[in-house]
Amino acid sequence: MDKMKQFEEIIARLEKLDYKDMLNDDFFLTWDKSTDELNSVFAVADALRNLREQNISTKVFDSGLGISLFRDNSTRTRFSFASACNLLGLEVQDLDEGKSQIAHGETVRETANMISFMADIIGIRDDMYIGKGHTYMQEVSQAVQEGHKDGVLEQRPTLVNLQCDIDHPTQSMADMLHIIHEFGGVENLKGKKIAMTWAYSPSYGKPLSVPQGIIGLMSRFGMEVVLAHPEGYEVMPEVEEVARKNAEASGGSFVKTNNMAEAFKDADIVYPKSWAPFAAMEKRTNLYGEGKFDEINVLEKELLAQNANHKDWECTEELMKTTTEGKALYMHCLPADITGVSCKEGEVEASVFDRYRVPLYKEAGYKPYIIAAMMFLSKVKDPVATLKALSEGKKPRFFEK
Amino acid sequence: MDKMKQFEEIIARLEKLDYKDMLNDDFFLTWDKSTDELNSVFAVADALRNLREQNISTKVFDSGLGISLFRDNSTRTRFSFASACNLLGLEVQDLDEGKSQIAHGETVRETANMISFMADIIGIRDDMYIGKGHTYMQEVSQAVQEGHKDGVLEQRPTLVNLQCDIDHPTQSMADMLHIIHEFGGVENLKGKKIAMTWAYSPSYGKPLSVPQGIIGLMSRFGMEVVLAHPEGYEVMPEVEEVARKNAEASGGSFVKTNNMAEAFKDADIVYPKSWAPFAAMEKRTNLYGEGKFDEINVLEKELLAQNANHKDWECTEELMKTTTEGKALYMHCLPADITGVSCKEGEVEASVFDRYRVPLYKEAGYKPYIIAAMMFLSKVKDPVATLKALSEGKKPRFFEK
Amino acid sequence: MDKMKQFEEIIARLEKLDYKDMLNDDFFLTWDKSTDELNSVFAVADALRNLREQNISTKVFDSGLGISLFRDNSTRTRFSFASACNLLGLEVQDLDEGKSQIAHGETVRETANMISFMADIIGIRDDMYIGKGHTYMQEVSQAVQEGHKDGVLEQRPTLVNLQCDIDHPTQSMADMLHIIHEFGGVENLKGKKIAMTWAYSPSYGKPLSVPQGIIGLMSRFGMEVVLAHPEGYEVMPEVEEVARKNAEASGGSFVKTNNMAEAFKDADIVYPKSWAPFAAMEKRTNLYGEGKFDEINVLEKELLAQNANHKDWECTEELMKTTTEGKALYMHCLPADITGVSCKEGEVEASVFDRYRVPLYKEAGYKPYIIAAMMFLSKVKDPVATLKALSEGKKPRFFEK
Repeated sequence: MDKMKQFEEIIARLEKLDYKDMLNDDFFLTWDKSTDELNSVFAVADALRNLREQNISTKVFDSGLGISLFRDNSTRTRFSFASACNLLGLEVQDLDEGKSQIAHGETVRETANMISFMADIIGIRDDMYIGKGHTYMQEVSQAVQEGHKDGVLEQRPTLVNLQCDIDHPTQSMADMLHIIHEFGGVENLKGKKIAMTWAYSPSYGKPLSVPQGIIGLMSRFGMEVVLAHPEGYEVMPEVEEVARKNAEASGGSFVKTNNMAEAFKDADIVYPKSWAPFAAMEKRTNLYGEGKFDEINVLEKELLAQNANHKDWECTEELMKTTTEGKALYMHCLPADITGVSCKEGEVEASVFDRYRVPLYKEAGYKPYIIAAMMFLSKVKDPVATLKALSEGKKPRFFEK
Repeated sequence: MDKMKQFEEIIARLEKLDYKDMLNDDFFLTWDKSTDELNSVFAVADALRNLREQNISTKVFDSGLGISLFRDNSTRTRFSFASACNLLGLEVQDLDEGKSQIAHGETVRETANMISFMADIIGIRDDMYIGKGHTYMQEVSQAVQEGHKDGVLEQRPTLVNLQCDIDHPTQSMADMLHIIHEFGGVENLKGKKIAMTWAYSPSYGKPLSVPQGIIGLMSRFGMEVVLAHPEGYEVMPEVEEVARKNAEASGGSFVKTNNMAEAFKDADIVYPKSWAPFAAMEKRTNLYGEGKFDEINVLEKELLAQNANHKDWECTEELMKTTTEGKALYMHCLPADITGVSCKEGEVEASVFDRYRVPLYKEAGYKPYIIAAMMFLSKVKDPVATLKALSEGKKPRFFEK
Repeated sequence: MDKMKQFEEIIARLEKLDYKDMLNDDFFLTWDKSTDELNSVFAVADALRNLREQNISTKVFDSGLGISLFRDNSTRTRFSFASACNLLGLEVQDLDEGKSQIAHGETVRETANMISFMADIIGIRDDMYIGKGHTYMQEVSQAVQEGHKDGVLEQRPTLVNLQCDIDHPTQSMADMLHIIHEFGGVENLKGKKIAMTWAYSPSYGKPLSVPQGIIGLMSRFGMEVVLAHPEGYEVMPEVEEVARKNAEASGGSFVKTNNMAEAFKDADIVYPKSWAPFAAMEKRTNLYGEGKFDEINVLEKELLAQNANHKDWECTEELMKTTTEGKALYMHCLPADITGVSCKEGEVEASVFDRYRVPLYKEAGYKPYIIAAMMFLSKVKDPVATLKALSEGKKPRFFEK
């Protein structure tokens, strides 16, 4: 389709949505947002991408900082955030605190203000410790809100959750936008079955925020969401409750099982991925807090041994054959543990991964636009008018004659 | 007041000042600059802030680098410098040399040229070793001046001292601009009493550049400047001499005391803050130079023990009551050692700090604009005309419809 | 000469050249490029510099990332790349993988795509291991080409070799542009003698890519290229073969000798510089691959001892006197090991280095423009029209009234 016509259709979609409460608001958990708001993020992401594809600049900021705060190393998220900031005109400035310096209380309040004098956006990734990441983001948000109210900060920086202990909204929203495009629109998802299943990995302690983010978001669109994992790999009960309520409200379903085959049976989408048991992660967090590093090492060994009992939880060709027409959309947040490629035994058979490599990379490609859309909607009063003005302005992203 | 009218008043102020020698010059020590020049920095800082508050872009650079060179970690100064560069359109590029690689002579000359081919500004923080920081900045400055003269560098990068062993001009100037705004203009400062006093901290070795910067600058405006510290915590004698001469010239005074209460009595402004004794820092610098790390450890223990003799040097509510109307402006460069909050016993009582938290954060908020103003005045031939052109151009910092 | 007239002459030069195959192509080895293509890089570098000197912006990118990937620390190359990106409007994003994480195969493919969603340029420096650097760059290039073809990447990021195990094209091209300007045009180089000679350094293991790059490039322009080194310090035979063929085609010559004096005799240009023996570097690479770190230490000691046998390979005043009129152009990629300055015994006598300091710094100053030109030619369909449009647009790099 013609890009300009496509742009008009995206704008028409956006015009019908209510996103007014997103202005000056943070994006922490998808279940804090209305369905209209989520759809606005999808529409703005599509619009920004469309303009970039037309070689039209979307730099709404002439200057300003986008601050990134990562508790652990993250090449992918770092580049996605940097890309989103750059797309809108913000310069990234990293605040590297390191794991050891997890500050709280007064220190958070002060640091948050000190770095924010010219900050429009703060992106935080803090997924390592159960009960900490989301709380920390709330502290930072409150600090800069007060700073703005008190006249310390000329603008109120808005926050984007780049992964916390509870949710991973930029991932799940990128995943969802991928699904929407693969299935030709959100309206086609009703009744589709998506299997979010645990899978074996030789590493341990992978964050829970991905499966939680997926069941918390996918249950919003009338899909049949199945969460499958071995006994002992439960996710946070609060998030299961969120998924249950979402499913009810959207006319879909949310079901749990300890049987991977059951989850794959007739699935339209499968998302097999390792994660750590919630209870174990909670224990680890407490041990860290108490400085009991020897016990952490013991716990890690136990968890790896526990994982090893479930090597049969692998996304195989055989299992894929049981999905709808044998062609379920395979998804992963990447990097995946691929059997025989990145490890001896892993989450997915190499031939399955290989067949879905291009779609998987496309899935990841939505993330910078999702992040940019979240930023855009938290800053721009009239997104429709502003996007139209950018489109009509036709300032080239790349200038050549 | 209306922002545009305010802008006109700032410009009117600037028009009366003589700043012509600031072009292509570095900013190292406030006492190297005329009072007109200092007032020009304040005016340009106010003007840049005013334009940003009006959502008008002040990006005078379309491309170009602002190089930051930090000898030690510094979140606040790093963000202030990055904000200032971004505000004017320069991209920050960090030169991380690390403490261990303090280069001199030919190496400085070569490195300074190699990194400066497209550099407009170099910001340096080098405050750790007495007798080194300022000297190093002078070496870098001479290197790039020669490089420019010899045709190696198309432009002459100008330097901003982001803290050296002698002065901390971006801090003291930000502090001063805060005072000016709190007291409603520089003309209201004549005869006001400011107490720069030592205060107890459980850490040791805090730089002398803050108290030195404060007495060297505040003595320029007709204030009664009191420097208070326990015996043995003397600052550099050269800077005391600067303060003495400044006070004489400006019709104010500069007085020293070893009595904190005396300093606070009837003060309009108090600045209680820990620092290390000059003589001890000089000794430490020599020990570093000789690689005598065992002796450094011994010295550190002695200094901490010496500090502990002066725990009564704390900014308490009781002391605050003795200031003018019990309401002296409490200042600090942050972070402060707050008793019962960031340490058991520290520089300031928690309730005092808490009451001044918002003003303290505002004080810090001037720094990016002070740095930007120093840059601006070292680069722009006609600041008045250029600021007016930016104002009239009305290019939005943040574009929305 | 008038800058605008100079610009027109550069454009006239560029108009005669065939550079059409450079579009969307990488720059890996100078001998992959036609002489017209090399001359196009020189012309565009001159044009970009000319415009910057006229204070005209050359930012063709409004947004976009330039990704830098350095296998080892590199202040100079890092700043050159950052300057080039900034000059054209790209924001640098560093991918720091560290030496230990040299990824291959699937991992390279995935990472290359994950970081490139908004990347226009990727600059890689990977010179440490024989047989690895160039191969790695090819892997990355193939990955992003496929990513673009498959619709994963909206644009195809082009690669610039910032130094590999085989060639160092941004260095040799900057060196060549320096020579061209020193000799008043490429047409004046026919028959000139250039001596690329080994020189003693107290360190060991300096990369071979500099001498290889020099003989591979300088042999293109009809010069008499002499490669001199002690026995045992051979460079890669494939590159010698390249030089031999180039010399034949260009009407120049390529000669090898183990006699430094012979190389200097009547030379117009001398490039004395230490490097490691190819065979030893190959051995070291294998030892690294096998994790034999003890044997690497032994090898290093052997190499240092071997080096020490050749302390007489120094660029002395005496040797300089034997060059054409005693005034050969002394060149070095910097930093040089200067006898009595940066080391006890080194590559060059202090008085020789000192006399050529300014030309050496100018030589280095071409690098950012060479890199920018390589980027420009890989992105811009019609460089002549685009450069003219920039020139006519007269958007100021630095705005002032």
